[in-house]
Amino acid sequence: MEFLLDITVEVPAGLPEAERKALFQEERARGRELLKEGTIVHIWRIPGAVRNVSIWEAPDATELHGLVMSLPSFKYATVSVTPLAIHPLRGGPDT
Amino acid sequence: MEFLLDITVEVPAGLPEAERKALFQEERARGRELLKEGTIVHIWRIPGAVRNVSIWEAPDATELHGLVMSLPSFKYATVSVTPLAIHPLRGGPDT
Amino acid sequence: MEFLLDITVEVPAGLPEAERKALFQEERARGRELLKEGTIVHIWRIPGAVRNVSIWEAPDATELHGLVMSLPSFKYATVSVTPLAIHPLRGGPDT
Amino acid sequence: MEFLLDITVEVPAGLPEAERKALFQEERARGRELLKEGTIVHIWRIPGAVRNVSIWEAPDATELHGLVMSLPSFKYATVSVTPLAIHPLRGGPDT
Amino acid sequence: MEFLLDITVEVPAGLPEAERKALFQEERARGRELLKEGTIVHIWRIPGAVRNVSIWEAPDATELHGLVMSLPSFKYATVSVTPLAIHPLRGGPDT
Amino acid sequence: MEFLLDITVEVPAGLPEAERKALFQEERARGRELLKEGTIVHIWRIPGAVRNVSIWEAPDATELHGLVMSLPSFKYATVSVTPLAIHPLRGGPDT
Amino acid sequence: MEFLLDITVEVPAGLPEAERKALFQEERARGRELLKEGTIVHIWRIPGAVRNVSIWEAPDATELHGLVMSLPSFKYATVSVTPLAIHPLRGGPDT
Amino acid sequence: MEFLLDITVEVPAGLPEAERKALFQEERARGRELLKEGTIVHIWRIPGAVRNVSIWEAPDATELHGLVMSLPSFKYATVSVTPLAIHPLRGGPDT
Amino acid sequence: MEFLLDITVEVPAGLPEAERKALFQEERARGRELLKEGTIVHIWRIPGAVRNVSIWEAPDATELHGLVMSLPSFKYATVSVTPLAIHPLRGGPDT
Amino acid sequence: MEFLLDITVEVPAGLPEAERKALFQEERARGRELLKEGTIVHIWRIPGAVRNVSIWEAPDATELHGLVMSLPSFKYATVSVTPLAIHPLRGGPDT
Repeated sequence: MEFLLDITVEVPAGLPEAERKALFQEERARGRELLKEGTIVHIWRIPGAVRNVSIWEAPDATELHGLVMSLPSFKYATVSVTPLAIHPLRGGPDT
Repeated sequence: MEFLLDITVEVPAGLPEAERKALFQEERARGRELLKEGTIVHIWRIPGAVRNVSIWEAPDATELHGLVMSLPSFKYATVSVTPLAIHPLRGGPDT
Repeated sequence: MEFLLDITVEVPAGLPEAERKALFQEERARGRELLKEGTIVHIWRIPGAVRNVSIWEAPDATELHGLVMSLPSFKYATVSVTPLAIHPLRGGPDT
Repeated sequence: MEFLLDITVEVPAGLPEAERKALFQEERARGRELLKEGTIVHIWRIPGAVRNVSIWEAPDATELHGLVMSLPSFKYATVSVTPLAIHPLRGGPDT
Repeated sequence: MEFLLDITVEVPAGLPEAERKALFQEERARGRELLKEGTIVHIWRIPGAVRNVSIWEAPDATELHGLVMSLPSFKYATVSVTPLAIHPLRGGPDT
Repeated sequence: MEFLLDITVEVPAGLPEAERKALFQEERARGRELLKEGTIVHIWRIPGAVRNVSIWEAPDATELHGLVMSLPSFKYATVSVTPLAIHPLRGGPDT
Repeated sequence: MEFLLDITVEVPAGLPEAERKALFQEERARGRELLKEGTIVHIWRIPGAVRNVSIWEAPDATELHGLVMSLPSFKYATVSVTPLAIHPLRGGPDT
Repeated sequence: MEFLLDITVEVPAGLPEAERKALFQEERARGRELLKEGTIVHIWRIPGAVRNVSIWEAPDATELHGLVMSLPSFKYATVSVTPLAIHPLRGGPDT
Repeated sequence: MEFLLDITVEVPAGLPEAERKALFQEERARGRELLKEGTIVHIWRIPGAVRNVSIWEAPDATELHGLVMSLPSFKYATVSVTPLAIHPLRGGPDT
Repeated sequence: MEFLLDITVEVPAGLPEAERKALFQEERARGRELLKEGTIVHIWRIPGAVRNVSIWEAPDATELHGLVMSLPSFKYATVSVTPLAIHPLRGGPDT
């Protein structure tokens, strides 16, 4: 099943630059793994913010939650999760 | 997988009383079927409104959408759907 | 350039059933064209509503607006448009 | 009487890891007691956040408030409480 | 148990004046009964609107919902219900 | 004249426990005085939060403001003030 | 005591032009009376809308409500009422 | 002085097509006049809606209001007006 | 031209009492100057908060911004500015 | 393509005055460059706040995001980006 995630990361302004850099490096590494294994299917940056929208594939919300918690930025992130159904144009139930 | 649904039904004030009654009778009949087949697992009335919160069990969001559209009140309803994960107290992934 | 669109269609409750059906048939036909020509790149149904999220590809906001206005449901639709940038994981500028 | 609770816990980012762990351990212990004694009837995790929705059984709002305050995370929690009525499908007063 | 109700009545602008008057007369009559039997404990008008805040006494949310539905204006009303606990100054559990 | 007050107190998480206790003790003492002199007419706890709703009697908004500022928790409090009119059921001007 | 009122008038688009004109004529006449008797102390138009902000002087919220209901546009109006205290610069209680 | 206007026009779905066309034709004619006389300085379409943002030049809010009311679509329009100051980069007072 | 300002001052809870007092003393002094020179025409306290609404007279938004920045509390203040037009009852353009 | 940006800068109250000054000096320098190269086409100050609205010209959202991140104040800024289409009065597609 697919989910739409809207993630905003707000690193505290006081975090030392080195820690901030390390955090984003780990975040990128974990992101690459999630892309490679097919969990993150699509991802875009929202311009003007440290915020992205992405499509995740997971068997259900429980496994999805575990995967989101595996993001190094999880404790600084605000995440909204929207479940997605197949659209009628793609074969989903018609209106 | 479980979903939390918050459904508010706003029947137009001008709908003839007979049609309104028929609609709610069909709604109850469909509701009983969904309960019996285990789709609606729990349901409560929000006091002061024609609004309810309920827990639905469905394989994914696509099937859930088809089931919600089967409600006779669908065209008068505002529905919000929240995917639910298993809580750590029930065996879900820990924080 | 890609855009995220969130479209909710609210057909007036009083619209005759035949007109409503015709509208959605035309909407599906136009949707298939937009998919085929590569304008609509992805599309999902938000469960519980006549609402979808989709990714559109268009040279700029002016052409996008013309394309959205070509939807038969345009006068009943509420559309929000979010511009999308390439994410660092996909080669976009890094944070 | 049943109540729907929506609880978000926001532990300050600066809390030492050991204190954070101890807090969640105490929280789990208290949660198990509330489940066992039948106060918390159902509980789910909202994916992507340290947030849950749950159904509590309490004689009235005064006792409920005392029980919510007994959560170790209370001072970091934002809690919304919605009173629940029996739905017509379960024998409540009909619309 | 006590509940805080915030009720706004929006009679459609097109309702004939006679029906509007009759509605408010019935509403007043029902209001007097609810006051007399001790269901409505306090009631105030919010200035500038057909809106009131009131304190209701009911055994639980199910009975409260039945009582609110007994208001002749129910189908034109937007009602929010807040459960109330006893304050520490009145003997409730202390913070 | 009566006013509806909705007060939420957010003591900073870092306040030492002793100061926090002293603050609430002074708050209770001041609350008892305001009840005794008839300024606070009714008060309830909103369950799940350090928040209350109350009815205050004061000659006008200027005196009310002075009285609210006399609360020891004033600098940690968010206060909304709603003026109250007499309801038609209690003799106020009819709709 | 003074009150800040924010009034938006939304005349239904279908109201015949003659009725609309008559309504605004009566509204102006009633407005002039309220200004003359000192009830409306100040009044401004919010540009771009049929909306105004004004300062009213009334003994209390009950009399204010009766005065607001005397506006011919009352049934088309959305009115918010904010009680005003004397500012410290004008002799009110100091912060 | 310059103002930022955000205007959304919602023509009722039931308006006959001929009237709708005539309205937009008059709107365009009036728009061209306002551009020519230098009142509307800039104007853009928000994609996906009958909504625009524009910069207006007017001596003050009173004249601006008269000019906005001269738009044929005024009674179907929701208009928000934001006053604009000169930015420090353009010679305005520095932060 | 007149503007409606809504100003909320949120001094950080940790500011030493002496600095807080000095700040409000300077604020009062600057306020008296602005009143005397006719910039602040009216000012009221919103009860229950360190918040005021006021009417300012300034040639345009640029000069207004400079004047608001001259308030000692500017860096702790949240300010909303609404431009005001002359109301038809005071001679402004009629609806 | 043009974009409307709404930028609010919230420098932490605790930032030393010298750092704050340096930050705004760098911000001005970078702003002058962006103006000179034609990226920022228009810019205005919203009175009463450290907030501006501006029109940016960029090939797409990806390049825009890189340009916004080049602002020295980026980590203290909240930025909303709205894509702009050509208005029918300027030759854009007609409604």
